[in-house]
Amino acid sequence: MESIKTTNKELFTNFKEFANKNVALQGWIRTNRDNGNIGFIEFNDGTFFKNVQLVYGKDTKNHDVVAGLRNGAAIELTGTVKLTPENKQPFEIELNEVVLAGDCDDDYPLQKKRHSFEFLREIAHIRPRGNTFQAVFRIRSVLSFAIHQFFNERGFLYVHTPEITTNDGEGAGNVFDVTTHDTKDPFNFYGRKVNLTVTGQLHVEPFALSFRNVYTFGPVFRAEHSNTVRHASEFWMIEPEMAFCDLNGNMEVIEACIKYCINYVLKNCPEEMEFFNTMIDNTLIERLKHVVNSEFKKLTYTEGIEVLKNAVKNGVKFENSDIFWGMDLQSEHERYLTEQIVKGPLFLIDYPSGIKAFYMKENADGKTVAACDLLVPAVGELVGGSQREERYDVLKGKMDKLGITEGLEWYLDTRKYGGCVHSGFGIGFDRLLMYVTGMQNIRDVQPYPRTSNSIKY
Amino acid sequence: MESIKTTNKELFTNFKEFANKNVALQGWIRTNRDNGNIGFIEFNDGTFFKNVQLVYGKDTKNHDVVAGLRNGAAIELTGTVKLTPENKQPFEIELNEVVLAGDCDDDYPLQKKRHSFEFLREIAHIRPRGNTFQAVFRIRSVLSFAIHQFFNERGFLYVHTPEITTNDGEGAGNVFDVTTHDTKDPFNFYGRKVNLTVTGQLHVEPFALSFRNVYTFGPVFRAEHSNTVRHASEFWMIEPEMAFCDLNGNMEVIEACIKYCINYVLKNCPEEMEFFNTMIDNTLIERLKHVVNSEFKKLTYTEGIEVLKNAVKNGVKFENSDIFWGMDLQSEHERYLTEQIVKGPLFLIDYPSGIKAFYMKENADGKTVAACDLLVPAVGELVGGSQREERYDVLKGKMDKLGITEGLEWYLDTRKYGGCVHSGFGIGFDRLLMYVTGMQNIRDVQPYPRTSNSIKY
Repeated sequence: MESIKTTNKELFTNFKEFANKNVALQGWIRTNRDNGNIGFIEFNDGTFFKNVQLVYGKDTKNHDVVAGLRNGAAIELTGTVKLTPENKQPFEIELNEVVLAGDCDDDYPLQKKRHSFEFLREIAHIRPRGNTFQAVFRIRSVLSFAIHQFFNERGFLYVHTPEITTNDGEGAGNVFDVTTHDTKDPFNFYGRKVNLTVTGQLHVEPFALSFRNVYTFGPVFRAEHSNTVRHASEFWMIEPEMAFCDLNGNMEVIEACIKYCINYVLKNCPEEMEFFNTMIDNTLIERLKHVVNSEFKKLTYTEGIEVLKNAVKNGVKFENSDIFWGMDLQSEHERYLTEQIVKGPLFLIDYPSGIKAFYMKENADGKTVAACDLLVPAVGELVGGSQREERYDVLKGKMDKLGITEGLEWYLDTRKYGGCVHSGFGIGFDRLLMYVTGMQNIRDVQPYPRTSNSIKY
Repeated sequence: MESIKTTNKELFTNFKEFANKNVALQGWIRTNRDNGNIGFIEFNDGTFFKNVQLVYGKDTKNHDVVAGLRNGAAIELTGTVKLTPENKQPFEIELNEVVLAGDCDDDYPLQKKRHSFEFLREIAHIRPRGNTFQAVFRIRSVLSFAIHQFFNERGFLYVHTPEITTNDGEGAGNVFDVTTHDTKDPFNFYGRKVNLTVTGQLHVEPFALSFRNVYTFGPVFRAEHSNTVRHASEFWMIEPEMAFCDLNGNMEVIEACIKYCINYVLKNCPEEMEFFNTMIDNTLIERLKHVVNSEFKKLTYTEGIEVLKNAVKNGVKFENSDIFWGMDLQSEHERYLTEQIVKGPLFLIDYPSGIKAFYMKENADGKTVAACDLLVPAVGELVGGSQREERYDVLKGKMDKLGITEGLEWYLDTRKYGGCVHSGFGIGFDRLLMYVTGMQNIRDVQPYPRTSNSIKY
C-alpha cells in the first residue's frame, strides 16, 4: 500500500484531507507508553509545535519492538490517519510499521518530568527537543524573518556591517579584542589593534547616505561582566538608518516595526504563543495585543522627570527616589511611566546630551538631544533611537572632546559630502524575543547563550 | 501647488502615471552641468539603479544657485514629470524648486571620471554612491533576502549559531582568538580559551536533530594570510542542515537553492544585472541562465580523476599535471571538468576520506566519504556539502584519532540520542555574490572588506 510522505505540520494543517489515508513520517519519539492492549507514542518531527499521537496494539507488526522504543529515538513510520473528533487531538495515526532510524541511549537527559531552565541550559544541544525551546527557537526564526520582511517591503537595503573593526565604540573598554596566536604581536594579522564590534551604526550610516533606507541585522558583542537576566556578551542587533528622516519619521518606523513583528508572530505561531501564555505568562497575549492596538504616546524626558518628581512627592516608592533632571532613568522609572502613567507604549524623547551618545543631534535648547527611547509595559526600554548630528562642526567638536576623532575621519566624511538629516534606531533582537515570548532570561532565548564565565560549546 | 512625495524607484516603475504631475524628491546629485540656456542634473536617491534627469533653465527659480550645486550634494526638490518617449530615458523632471539639504566639499573623492576598484576600496564609505557599488550592494541585499525566502518557503528554521566558541574547527590554528585587555589572563572573560567561529555546522546539527530542517546564515572568520581575490578573513556563510536526508536529498536542495537565488536576482535586479553584463562580464547573464536551465550532472571523484588523467594523456595542459587518486583537486581541474567535460554545473561526489572533514559519512568502500562539491563554469567550487557520519563509534574513532574529542562531547551526543541520517552543505555567501555579479575580487562585494594587513574602518 502506497503511503503519502508528509509532516506533522501538513497533517495538523489539513488533517481532514488525510482521513483514512496512509502516511509516512520521520521524526522523534517524545514519549512511548504501552499498557498491554494498546500503546501510544507522542511523536514530533520538528516541523510543528504539537505532537502527533501514534497508536499501536497487540496486532501491530513487531509489537514488542514498537513497545520497547525509547524516548528520544528517531523513527520512520507508516500508518493510517484516523479522525478523532471526540478527542482533544483532532486525529491520531494507527501505526502500520515502524523502523528505528536512530536509537537513544538510556542516559538521555530529557526525561518525562519537567526540567528547570537552569538544568536545560547545561544541555543547550538537547533542549530544543522539549516544548519550551521548540517554541522559543521557532519564534526566534519567525521573528527574524518578520524583521527582514518588514524592511524588505519598505525598500530598505540590508547591509552586512563588519564584526571585526578598529572602532571600539566610545573607548569604554568593554570590547573583546581579536588576536592571533603570535604572543609578541597579537594584532599582527591586520597590522593594528582590532576588536569585535559593539554596534553596526557607524558603519551603516554611509550606506544610508547612499541608499537612503538601510538596516543591519547581525551579531554584536560586549565584554561586560553584567551578570543579569538581560545581558549577554554576544547578541543580535537590528539597526536601521534612514536619510532625509527626522526624529518623528524615526518614531513612525519604530512603531510600525514593533507592531508588524508582534502581529507576524501572533499570526504565524498561534500554538507556540498559546503555550507561552499558558506556561510562562498568562498576560502575554493580552499585553502584546494591547501594544498592537495602541497609538504610541510621546513625552519629553523633561516632562517625564516632572511626572516622576510628583510621584515621589505623592508617596510612590522607587528604589532610587532621588529624581533630578540629568539623571539616567532606571528601569523602575521607565516602567512607572509606561505602566502607571501612559498605560501603554511610550516614546520618551529629548534626553539630556550628557547621558546620550556623541552622534545624537543637539536640539536648539543647547542641552538636550533628539533621542527617542521606546518604553513598554513589563519591560521598560525596548528600542533606542535618535536623529543624528549632521552638522560637521558640531559633531567634530563633540568627538574631539571625547578624543575619538582619530580613526573615525571616515565617519566625519559623511557630514562633509552630501550629509543630510538622518535618523536611526537599534533593537536588541534577543530582548525583543524575550518580550514577545515572555521568557525572562536572555540565556533561554539564545541557541547557545554567551555570558561571562559560561561557555561550553 | 501640491507635490506628490515619491522616489526614483516609483517614478521608473510607474512613470506614465506621473506624467505632467508635480513631484517631490530627496536625494543626491551625481552630476550637474549647465550650458547657460539649459542645465541637467543626474539625480539619484538610492532607491533605484538609474538616475532621474532633472532639467532647469534660465527661468528656473534661483537659477544661479541651482547651476552652482556641486556633485555629491544632498537636495530636496519639486518639479514636473515630463514624458520623453523620443529619448533614451522615458521621462525627465522640469525643476521647480531645489533646496540644498547638505552640501558637498570640493575635495569629494568621487569625480566624474572612472575610478579604479583599487582606489574605491580606499573609500569604502563613499563607493556605494557610484554605479558599480550601488549595483553590488543592492544585489547583496536582494540575494540575502532570496536565501531567507527560499528556506522559509521550505519550512527551514533559521538558527543564530554563536560567533564566539570554544571549538577551533580542526585545530588548524587559523582561528582568531577572542581576548580581553587583561594581559595576564586574556581569556578571563569566559574562563577558558575562546575564538571566533570558522563554521556554524557543528552548532547547527543539534537543531536539525530537533527541528528537522534548519539553516544558519551569519559571519564566520579565518585568520589565513591568503592574499588572493577569493579569500577574506571575515565573510558570511549559509549552512543548511537536514535530518532524514541523504546525499541525494542534499544535492536536490543545493540545486534548487542555487537556481532559486539566480532566478530571484535576475527577476528583481534587471537593471543592475544588465549593468554587470555590460561593464564587468558580457557572458554573465547567459552563463547564469544556462545554470538555471541545466540539470546538474553528477560524477564521482574517482571518475573525475580518470577523466583528468586521460586529458593529460591527450595533451591538455594543467599547471599541476600530476593527477592521482587521493589528490586535492585544484581550481584548474575543477574548471576543466565543469567547463570542458560537462559544460555546465557538476556535482563531484564521493571524495577520498583523507582530503575531507572528519564529520563526513564513510562510504561502504571504506575509502571515500559521501561528500558533494558543486562545481560551476568560470568559478569552480561554489558549494560544498556532505552526508554526515551518524554512527557514534565511527565518528568517535575519527575524532579520537584527530585528538579533537575533548570539548566536543556534546557534538557526539547528537549521535547517541536519536541521531539519524542527516546531511548539509555550506555556501560562501560572498563568493556566491561574486558569481552572480561577475565581480572578480571579494574585496569588491563586501561593504567593508576584511583581509590581512588591511583594515581601516
